[in-house]
Formats: sequence, structure tokens, C-alpha cells
Amino acid sequence: MGYIGRMAKPLRHVLVCLNQRAPGNPKGSCGEKGSEAMLTRLKEAVAEAGLKQTVMVVGTRCLKHCSRGVTVAVYPENVWYGGVKQEDLAEICDVHLRRGEPIERLFMPDIPWE
Amino acid sequence: MGYIGRMAKPLRHVLVCLNQRAPGNPKGSCGEKGSEAMLTRLKEAVAEAGLKQTVMVVGTRCLKHCSRGVTVAVYPENVWYGGVKQEDLAEICDVHLRRGEPIERLFMPDIPWE
Repeated sequence: MGYIGRMAKPLRHVLVCLNQRAPGNPKGSCGEKGSEAMLTRLKEAVAEAGLKQTVMVVGTRCLKHCSRGVTVAVYPENVWYGGVKQEDLAEICDVHLRRGEPIERLFMPDIPWE
Repeated sequence: MGYIGRMAKPLRHVLVCLNQRAPGNPKGSCGEKGSEAMLTRLKEAVAEAGLKQTVMVVGTRCLKHCSRGVTVAVYPENVWYGGVKQEDLAEICDVHLRRGEPIERLFMPDIPWE
């Protein structure tokens, strides 16, 4: 991965949006769609796959694709996934984070930030 | 920036650690060092510099460099800054986010994740 600076960097950094809007907000939110539990599960999956030393998974505030959540972004590839569900996490971990192959069917559609 | 997938991506994505540990925790934390206010200020600075359409600034949970916080990471460059203070934010915005030049004096030292 691109390397500027002195410190050891994660090989991949996975961002999971945890933003929670009030129930009924027309935008919806990733938090409302269960992203907190998905963050927990993805961290477990990364640990189970032996990737904990190379992949950092972190919860974030709003990633600005509320209506298309759950939103997950992966750097350095700059891959953004939309509409991610619990049942997609094993594939994200195995295919993308372990084998390095982004998963096209989960790509965020070409929409502007909200 | 590297582009995989269909959606418009931020040209730069800035992560600001907001993790807050209890006062007196020996690790310390970025939240304890005022990172919430710094996130607010950095977002304002990005807006004032006219970079809002290209730079996304987001608060995150723990970026795992608690004792060296406040921690700020910038993708796609994969630049990690440590010990960031309020008075560094204008420089980060102007020199790095606007002109594209990482700021060596703020680089996180070469230490493992905590």
C-alpha cells in the first residue's frame, strides 16, 4: 500500500458507518439498519481469518450515503459498498479483505454524497 | 485517486479519532485531548477553503494510537498524523488538503498499533 511517513500502516482500513438518525427520518441511516452489530461481526470475522495484524476495522460517523446504507468503505482501494447486510460480511472478509478482490455486486451506485 | 467502482469518491478522506477513555486511563485518548472540537474546526476549515465537494472529514472510533493522539489519518495518501493540536489544523487544511503536500513534522512515529 502507498506508504508516506514512518509508522506501520494497516494493509487495509475498513470503515463502517454507524450514524444513527431518528426512526422515521426519510433519509434512513446505517445505524438504523444494524451497522453496529455488523461492525462487531466484521471485527470478529477479521480476527477469525487471522487478519487482525493487517486489517483495521473502525466504526465512523456519517459516511454520507444514508439512503444507501449500510455503507462500508475500504482503503487503500477506495472501494465503497452500499446496502451491505450481515450476510455479506463473510464474503467481504474472505474475498476482499483476505484475497484482495473487490466485490462488484455490492458497489455503491454512482450517486453524489448526501 | 484510485478509482474502483461506480460512485463519485471523495478526493481525500480525513479520519479524526474521537475515542474517549475515562479520565486517568494510562493510555489517554484522542477524545480527552479535545478531538471532538478539532473535528468541528477541521470541517469548518475545509468548508472555508472551498474544499467541501472534494474532501470528506469524518469522526471515527479508536484509530489505535491512543497515547500519541490526537490521531488523524488521510486517505488515499495513507498519511497518519500524531499529536495533532488545534493550532495544526489550518496547516493540515492548507498544505495537505488543498496543496496535496503531507506535513512531515506531524507524522505518526513508527510504533505498532496499540
